[in-house]
Order: sequence, then C-alpha cells, then structure tokens
Amino acid sequence: MPEESNLSGKRPRAVGLLGGGVIGGGWAARFILNGADVRLYGRSPRTLERVQRILTSARRAYRQLMPVWLPPEGSLTVVKSVAEAVRGVDLVQESAPECLELKRQLLADAAREAPHGTLICSSTSGFRPSLLQAEMDHPEFFLVAHPFQPVYLLPLVELCAGERTVPDALEQAAAIYRTIGMHPLIVRKEMDGFIANRLQDAISREALWMVHDDVATLQEIDDAVRYSWALRRAVMGSYRMSNGGLRMRQSIAQWAFKWPWSRLTEKPDMGPTF
Amino acid sequence: MPEESNLSGKRPRAVGLLGGGVIGGGWAARFILNGADVRLYGRSPRTLERVQRILTSARRAYRQLMPVWLPPEGSLTVVKSVAEAVRGVDLVQESAPECLELKRQLLADAAREAPHGTLICSSTSGFRPSLLQAEMDHPEFFLVAHPFQPVYLLPLVELCAGERTVPDALEQAAAIYRTIGMHPLIVRKEMDGFIANRLQDAISREALWMVHDDVATLQEIDDAVRYSWALRRAVMGSYRMSNGGLRMRQSIAQWAFKWPWSRLTEKPDMGPTF
Repeated sequence: MPEESNLSGKRPRAVGLLGGGVIGGGWAARFILNGADVRLYGRSPRTLERVQRILTSARRAYRQLMPVWLPPEGSLTVVKSVAEAVRGVDLVQESAPECLELKRQLLADAAREAPHGTLICSSTSGFRPSLLQAEMDHPEFFLVAHPFQPVYLLPLVELCAGERTVPDALEQAAAIYRTIGMHPLIVRKEMDGFIANRLQDAISREALWMVHDDVATLQEIDDAVRYSWALRRAVMGSYRMSNGGLRMRQSIAQWAFKWPWSRLTEKPDMGPTF
Repeated sequence: MPEESNLSGKRPRAVGLLGGGVIGGGWAARFILNGADVRLYGRSPRTLERVQRILTSARRAYRQLMPVWLPPEGSLTVVKSVAEAVRGVDLVQESAPECLELKRQLLADAAREAPHGTLICSSTSGFRPSLLQAEMDHPEFFLVAHPFQPVYLLPLVELCAGERTVPDALEQAAAIYRTIGMHPLIVRKEMDGFIANRLQDAISREALWMVHDDVATLQEIDDAVRYSWALRRAVMGSYRMSNGGLRMRQSIAQWAFKWPWSRLTEKPDMGPTF
C-alpha cells in the first residue's frame, strides 16, 4: 500500500540487488513494478525461480490493492557476480542473511566494484550501520535501509546513517524510496533493532509471558490482537499525534503504568519442549 | 468490522446499559444498529445528546464498511434509574468510569433490581471480575465483557468469569455478543488487564523508552507502527498460528531475544515537564 508516489523525485532507472531471498525478492518485485530495471546477484541456483514467484504474487497484490497509476514494468536480470550487479545502477540494495561477516564482505565488494558515489544500502534488521561500513572503501555513501515484509506491499523503510555516512546519501536514498511508493523514516540515532522491530519485540515478550503462565494460547493472543487494536493501529499508529503529543501525555497521565499489570517483563524460560 | 453474524444465536430483544460515556455510547450504537432496544441510564444531563452523536457516527461507519445485512434499528430510551434500565432486558452492560467503588455500587444495584438470572456484564478494562462481584446479590450471572474502542466497530470482547460466576453465564453472554457481530474471547484466568491491553502496554513501555532516550519522537513512532507491521497484524494477529504454533516456535528459535536490543524494559521516569 504505497503512499502517493512522489513524482517530482527521479525514479531509479536501474538498481543492483545483492541477495535473492524473501527480502531481496520483495525488493526486486517493488522496484520492477515501479518501473526500475533490476540486476540481481544471488548465490542459490534457484534464485531466478524464487524471485519470479514473488513477482507473480506482487503483481496480483498490486492489481487488487493499488488504485494508482504504475509505469511500465522494469526488467529482471540475474547476474553472476557482485560486479555485474553494482555497475551502472542508481542504488545497490544488500539483503543477505543476518550474518555480520557475510554482509561486511558483500558490502566491501560492492563498494570496491561500484562507481564512486553509488548509494549502497543494507536491508539489515539487526546491525548498526557503523558496524557494517567499517571495512568499506567508500563508506560515505552507505546506509541502512530496513524494509518490512512483504517488501512490495508495506511502505515503511527505516533509514539509518553510520558514523561515516554523509547526510546527502540519506537524502538521496529517501528521495529514491519515495518514488517507489515507500515511506522513508530517518532513524536519527544508531540503535540496535531500529524502531519498528523493537516495538514488535516488546509485544513478543509480553505474549511469551502469557503463554508461559498459561494465561492465553498463541491462538488466543492472535485473536486478541487482530480483532482489537491492530485494526486501529493500522490507521492511527500508536498515539495519534494531535496537539503535538498532548493525547499521549493525557493517556499516560490517565492510564499508563497505574495498573497492577504494568509489571516489568523479563524474558521467560520457555523450556526445551516449547 | 463484525465477523459474519451468527444468525443461529438469538439476538437480544432489549438490553440495559449503565453509563453513557464513550464506551456506553459505543455499546448503545452497536446494540441499536444490530436491532436491539437500548434502555440507557447515565447520570450526565447530556447523555442523550452524546449517545445520539456516537450513533450518528456509527451509522455512517456501518454504511461505508459493512457489506452485511442488518436488521431494523432498535430504539434508544434514556432512563432515570438503574431499576428502569435493568428490568425486562436480556443483558445488562455496565460502562461506568474505572472507579472500583462506583462500579461495585452500580453492579450491586443492578443485581438487586434485575430479575434473577439476568446476565450482568462489566466493560471494565482494569478490574478482576471477582473483585467486582464481591458485593453482588446474585454474582453467578456476572462477568467482565471488555470491549475496544470504537465499540461499534472493533469486534473483540474479552469475557472473563469471576470466582462465583457460573459457566453457563459465560456461554450465554458469548452467544449474545456473537449475534451483534462480535468476537468473544474467553479469558481463562483472571488477570489484571486481561490480554489485549497488556500487549498494548508492552508497546507503550518500549515507545516511552525511545522517547525518553531521544531515539524517536512520538510522530516517528506512530509512522513506524502504521506504515509497517500494524497493517500486517490487522490481518494476521501476532504469529499466524499455522501448524499449531510451529511458526512462532521457529520465529523464537531464529530471532527472538538474540539481539542486543532485547533488553528488559523498565518504565522510564518521564519527568514533570513531559
């Protein structure tokens, strides 16, 4: 569900994707359906097949959900090396598994092979950008751009600069993501987990306590969430920021942490048989 | 967004509502639009005006969102005493402010005035049913039925029995709420805060830490939630329980609590100027 496309920004002509798993494939679908040519480097022999399957799902979802005009589709080319993926593109997006050494290696290769000034972004949901850019040749055009599954549908992309990133890189990347229907959110401080996933983890901790204490089953927790506030949060976020946060302040004054259930939540030991 | 109505259940003919604030008014709208006559007791002289305003909003929302057939609307009568509200009705719903003494008094009055066997439910989002029923004459037909705002739209109602509630009361109440498009969730153990709000509180704690640490503003947290996982959770709940929870177990094994950001979250001191 992209926001209105920012048509004043320049859509990317071509992008290089490193990694063709579920995240890389989701990026491929989003870029292609928004008119960019994709050059994708994935190590698995089944990369092409997998990405095409994701693209088929994405086309169906866009047809059903998108009331907006979309440009003619871009092309998909699976390439055999990092070098082929990163030359002549407007942006490189790395989506390898969450292994620090693997990502560092790929990003270092990408920075060495790409023309100077090419934006290089990592989809990591875990590592701080300063960690990832430590071994790069030109770290100033590197940043984290963390998307959410399914990448071709959910609009959020969290952008986070490392110590050596230049501000201009962040702005250029934000402009590109806006042209493909995304909502870039600048994470102003480096923080493990960024913003949205930390909030999700907080729910997970509480949910695990309930299961651990036999207060609710997984199915009951699911139902409690989807039949109640998830419907509202999809529209309003957490607090609906009317009056510069007044509503949240009122809510805290009136409700928050005054009840016995506002206890601290440590991680429960779920045991080996869970 | 009600689920398909359970037309095999018997819709309530008339209900008695105690309290005409935003929750009581929401109940009034849901019952009336689903064909039940409402007898509402509220202490404010502006009760009727407020409830009619909520009813107008609810009618508009139903017209735009509900693809289902609805019966002819029930009537709204504002009455001057608890006794007038609770006689000759299929269910009594108390929605007074979250003050234990006030609720206990209202519920004791209702139990004394209502014919024996009348279901009496409390909308409390905080108090355990055993606390609320302690001073009632016939506590066996009392339970908590906790809805979510806006009551006329969100389908969840958490049902929780007290120590002295009979199981039949829970089943009868669940059947009635189903006929007005709701999803009753039986909370099997008495627990402060029930289920859905405990999960919301967990998000609030983490959000407050981020604001406290100047990692994100309220607006940024809102955007992070509504442009990412809230859209997914509205459809899938927390964990999508395929294979009896296998997916959650996999998710825990692969991800949860392995990252540095999985720290404990204590409540931060927001200071007097927040």
